[in-house]
Amino acid sequence: MNSAYFWPIPVASIIALLFAWLFFKSMMKGNEGDETMIRIASHVRKGAMAYLNQQYKVVGIVFLILTAVFALLSFGLKVQNAWLPFAFVTGGFFSGLAGYFGMKTATYASGRTAHAAKDSLDAGLRISFRSGAVMGLAVVGLALLYISIWWAILDTFVDAASQSQKLMIITTTMLTFGMGASLQALFARVGGGIYTKAADVGADLVGKVEAGIPEDDPRNPATIADNVGDNVGDVAGMGADLYESYSGSILAAAALGAAAFMTVENGAHQLAAVMAPMLIAAAGIILSIVGIFFIKTKAGATQKELLASLEKGINISSILITVASFFILKWLALPNYLGVWGAIVVGLVTGIIIGKATAYYTSSEFKPTQHISENGQTGPATVIIAGLGVGFISTAIPVLAIMVGTTLAYFFAAGGLDISNINQGLYGIGIAAVGMLSTLGITLATDAYGPIVDNAGGNAEMAHLPPEVRERTDALDSLGNTTAATGKGFAIGSAALTALALMASYYEAIRISIGQAIKNVGTFTFPNGDVLNSATQLESLGIIDLVNSYDVHLMNPKVVIGLLLGAMMAFVFCGLTMNAVGRAAASMVDEVRRQFKEIPGILEGENEPDYARCVEISTKGAQREMLVPSLLVILVPVVFGVLLGVPAVVGLLAGGLSAGFALAVFMANSGGAWDNAKKFIEEGNFGGKGSEAHKATVIGDTVGDPFKDTSGPSLNILIKLMSMVAIVMAGVTVSFSLF
Amino acid sequence: MNSAYFWPIPVASIIALLFAWLFFKSMMKGNEGDETMIRIASHVRKGAMAYLNQQYKVVGIVFLILTAVFALLSFGLKVQNAWLPFAFVTGGFFSGLAGYFGMKTATYASGRTAHAAKDSLDAGLRISFRSGAVMGLAVVGLALLYISIWWAILDTFVDAASQSQKLMIITTTMLTFGMGASLQALFARVGGGIYTKAADVGADLVGKVEAGIPEDDPRNPATIADNVGDNVGDVAGMGADLYESYSGSILAAAALGAAAFMTVENGAHQLAAVMAPMLIAAAGIILSIVGIFFIKTKAGATQKELLASLEKGINISSILITVASFFILKWLALPNYLGVWGAIVVGLVTGIIIGKATAYYTSSEFKPTQHISENGQTGPATVIIAGLGVGFISTAIPVLAIMVGTTLAYFFAAGGLDISNINQGLYGIGIAAVGMLSTLGITLATDAYGPIVDNAGGNAEMAHLPPEVRERTDALDSLGNTTAATGKGFAIGSAALTALALMASYYEAIRISIGQAIKNVGTFTFPNGDVLNSATQLESLGIIDLVNSYDVHLMNPKVVIGLLLGAMMAFVFCGLTMNAVGRAAASMVDEVRRQFKEIPGILEGENEPDYARCVEISTKGAQREMLVPSLLVILVPVVFGVLLGVPAVVGLLAGGLSAGFALAVFMANSGGAWDNAKKFIEEGNFGGKGSEAHKATVIGDTVGDPFKDTSGPSLNILIKLMSMVAIVMAGVTVSFSLF
Repeated sequence: MNSAYFWPIPVASIIALLFAWLFFKSMMKGNEGDETMIRIASHVRKGAMAYLNQQYKVVGIVFLILTAVFALLSFGLKVQNAWLPFAFVTGGFFSGLAGYFGMKTATYASGRTAHAAKDSLDAGLRISFRSGAVMGLAVVGLALLYISIWWAILDTFVDAASQSQKLMIITTTMLTFGMGASLQALFARVGGGIYTKAADVGADLVGKVEAGIPEDDPRNPATIADNVGDNVGDVAGMGADLYESYSGSILAAAALGAAAFMTVENGAHQLAAVMAPMLIAAAGIILSIVGIFFIKTKAGATQKELLASLEKGINISSILITVASFFILKWLALPNYLGVWGAIVVGLVTGIIIGKATAYYTSSEFKPTQHISENGQTGPATVIIAGLGVGFISTAIPVLAIMVGTTLAYFFAAGGLDISNINQGLYGIGIAAVGMLSTLGITLATDAYGPIVDNAGGNAEMAHLPPEVRERTDALDSLGNTTAATGKGFAIGSAALTALALMASYYEAIRISIGQAIKNVGTFTFPNGDVLNSATQLESLGIIDLVNSYDVHLMNPKVVIGLLLGAMMAFVFCGLTMNAVGRAAASMVDEVRRQFKEIPGILEGENEPDYARCVEISTKGAQREMLVPSLLVILVPVVFGVLLGVPAVVGLLAGGLSAGFALAVFMANSGGAWDNAKKFIEEGNFGGKGSEAHKATVIGDTVGDPFKDTSGPSLNILIKLMSMVAIVMAGVTVSFSLF
Repeated sequence: MNSAYFWPIPVASIIALLFAWLFFKSMMKGNEGDETMIRIASHVRKGAMAYLNQQYKVVGIVFLILTAVFALLSFGLKVQNAWLPFAFVTGGFFSGLAGYFGMKTATYASGRTAHAAKDSLDAGLRISFRSGAVMGLAVVGLALLYISIWWAILDTFVDAASQSQKLMIITTTMLTFGMGASLQALFARVGGGIYTKAADVGADLVGKVEAGIPEDDPRNPATIADNVGDNVGDVAGMGADLYESYSGSILAAAALGAAAFMTVENGAHQLAAVMAPMLIAAAGIILSIVGIFFIKTKAGATQKELLASLEKGINISSILITVASFFILKWLALPNYLGVWGAIVVGLVTGIIIGKATAYYTSSEFKPTQHISENGQTGPATVIIAGLGVGFISTAIPVLAIMVGTTLAYFFAAGGLDISNINQGLYGIGIAAVGMLSTLGITLATDAYGPIVDNAGGNAEMAHLPPEVRERTDALDSLGNTTAATGKGFAIGSAALTALALMASYYEAIRISIGQAIKNVGTFTFPNGDVLNSATQLESLGIIDLVNSYDVHLMNPKVVIGLLLGAMMAFVFCGLTMNAVGRAAASMVDEVRRQFKEIPGILEGENEPDYARCVEISTKGAQREMLVPSLLVILVPVVFGVLLGVPAVVGLLAGGLSAGFALAVFMANSGGAWDNAKKFIEEGNFGGKGSEAHKATVIGDTVGDPFKDTSGPSLNILIKLMSMVAIVMAGVTVSFSLF
């Protein structure tokens, strides 16, 4: 096909990886500090890598099993495309590679950041931010490289009657290729989330509360595990989550584009519509790098100036991609290119609004969080009640933003809200998700640097560096908290929009599965009795015809019980991950107590605690606990689909998305607000550190830990993965459903 | 019409009211005790009645405004039936009357229960349970009387071409008649819920925590308000909630029955299908009274024997209604009477399963609650995390029960799961809701007696009765907690099933509104361009045709954003009610602190505190705080419908139901489990009263208070009321939507 459309995509992805490599090299030139610092950093690095190795082993086994299942579907039952097993494995591998690079960089960077912070605030920011950028660029670069490679392969090997047909086959085939990334994301978020909070809660409960030693104190046996947790949860987990959103949104938009323009002027614009999401992503990569270079730190800059500098970088990237996408779409000459461009802008703006709303509800600069701190004066119960209240209310703006964003994206792309142009409208929704994620290279960088400075602070504390170093890393950490809050909101918002796009493209998966069924047995019968005898008949069926043939309306009891199940899944999944943290933290508590009792001289600082044992306990706990919730998310859509068919599955996805999205925002924002309410008191408000109000907010913060770092972020995966599983298993649902 | 079908209904309702009157009289003969007891009871009674008067004033104003709106809809815009304004006012009046009777009885009964408990446990149970039965029978009696009266009026005055037409008009007209009860329920649950928890949390925070005086101590100025709260929240609020479910399910089932059998054998069975839900409700009333008389208490009975006796009464009623409904349906000779009977049994069993599941997750006899108590040993944070975990997980069984129940009810009534018999299937869902609620007369009695004994305990404490009296009332209270847990689960489950039935009957409201539009302007155009020029054309449109004309499928972006909004509404509503409790409790805290400081000798017991002032503060707080969440629930469906039309409204209802149901179960069960986890420790486990574990669970209990008594139960109303508002405003949505 038109190579002018194709070549910028792999080129951009390779440029991203090149810059990631350069940033990594430049970070590695930094001084790692004295012997103690090197030793501590090495402890954390070894722990993190040990965790990743262990996790990849477990994930490897799951991949092995699922590859066998997919091979059966592809070659045995012939209800899936033949590429799926290979794409699944390579997809998982690329996502895992991004996590590996990101975490390796982060664990090398934290000690160097601590050392640089000895000099100045901005020196610390420079090294940590560039290291965060390694993660950002590795994620977008590897995702787009993966897509480019498979596009090239399919373009070479797929054979079809017309180019229009070929594009449909390639894009719907590639739609299933997000599964590998989804599965990596699931285990990274759930496993990493359980790990980090088991270590954190365990360390706090025995260290801070029982033994009365400060955070990150080297006498606490769980402190290394806690620092490892920041890496596996916030770096690897967040990276895998957004890797999934990024690739999922591009693949969904491409499939929706192929469907939308297949019949428009005989598919004359179809290739342009399919390539548009990838080209915009490619431009986004380059412009993210441009933005990164605009983040300049002056010697002696204040915290405010540093934040302004970070925001400047992101803003420049956003503005540039707005302009660039206009010209890309004009060049692609889509008939409604202005409308499609409108959808991209809507996506970008939606992401920004959700980020700002998250910052409002979780930053101690604003009323909601201060209100929680104030409630500390009447004890922990009112802190909890106030925090939950803030979390519940905070769902309004993000959900409204997605609602309005979806409506406008559809409206602009379809030229109206009715469903006569539904395919164009759905393409608009897909492209809005791509727009929102187009600057991921830089936004993820501002997010991933947070845990690096957090770890730098831990390193400084444990290595007994002068207090001004810890003050500087704390200042950087607080800066990181602001960007992390925005980043978390962004992760949820993009997950919701990506899930919407995936849900919309589910019908393309259904269509291709019906086509496969016709190829296999020559005929296909819908549940309502309609019969198709040839693939040509299928082509003439619009998406609304498919919807009607399957009765995917809200009077069908299957749809309604699907909705109920989807909503319930989100709640039960939350409960499972919360309980998992509880159990894993309990074993950590036992171990820390044991070490305090059995190893003499720990609390006096005479003997080093057995850090490795705590790392091992967290690792094992996370691996053991992540299986049940993960299996639930994978199996329920399959089993439910086999039982009750397509309408029930669509209900399930819609219920999981609507309830799961609100629940994810609630959990993330309650948790974030409790964290900062505690910090607000530590800054000297309402009695300051050590007051009763402080103790009350420490309890709130502990409750918030699994909220914001385990259950909340894991829900991001739930809402996307259920759609992805449904898409991959569409063939089974279409051919084998019982009722 | 056939009067043999009609007369049993008003007769049964009058019998119910007669027995309510007899039970009330017999309770009033009881001895109210000494002067102190009489004075305390009178304080509580006056406070409760003052609250009810104040609430009815506010509700009166809202009713006045809405009656004007409905008059405008009915007579000005002519998009609503002319009966609505009158039915709305009388419906509100009957529901309010039930609340008034129930609360009056409860406040007279508690002192007498305390006095009877001086003699024995079973004497206390006898008087309190019979008083609870007054509430149960007043609710079902007044609801069915209201329905009978309006049926008689409409049967006399409605004129139509055929009986079949007439039945359609009567039933869809009456469908809107649930609005008065819905509105009463909203204010009773939200206002009552805020009142009771503001008083409770306020009393606990200053009394128990700061001043260190026990629960229900007469020295605590908020203690009367706390006891008033049990009445306004648990008696009046629960009663209004179930009154709404009861009447809503009957009205919805009747409308679905008229639609289901309109074209079957030329409507030969239509009348039978319409009357079936009312006749089953009538039989249920009589059999509830029979069950009540089977609850016999032996002198000197143990707590276990008393519980067994209560359960025996409910079981007898349930078995009898199962048998009776079989013969009623056989007598009515519906063609698929066995299937319809199956739906009734499914409804009854679903209710029982949800009740048992609630008891499992919230009773200290089982692992989940004990696990929370155990977590008390590591402090309040782990208590909160464990309680939330239990609540999240506990959503699984109730949601699965409703899913399976709905599926089976549809399956039995329609003879299959496909949508070819959709009208019969939806009728099955409606009739299942009626089946679940058929024994409400007795189940509500076992629920309403709880707050009576709770208040009796308060009375005994404040009147310094001998400790064995308090022990007996505590034993009765603990018995009440078991039945209350079951009752709460039942209230949520019936709300969900009723909401499903209302959602299904929404299409009948749409149909009648389109008919009205045709009558008004001679023609009607669907959003998809289809045109109707006569009412006859409308009649030939099936429900699926309507669904298709409005594109109410899950690819329509309006439906999807409706789902998102519905789910978000449930979360925001929860946040608003949680915050309302927080604010109202804070003013109570200030007042109690002020009294301790300014009125000398309170803590020494030398001066009586100013109880009335605390009652007033709770009353005003509740009235002020209930308006915003209430208006939200009423206005959002209207505004959203006017903006985006029918598909968006259906999405909203489905999203609100699926997320709201799971959220309601989560909130109610977390709260209930925390409460009993505290009690489990107070029984001497994990260190017992006064231990650190106990303190931790007291914090859990305080957090749980607004969960289980304000936000959770208020969600029951949210999911029903949004459907009811949508039904009443269907005419506006159909005729005036903008996009």
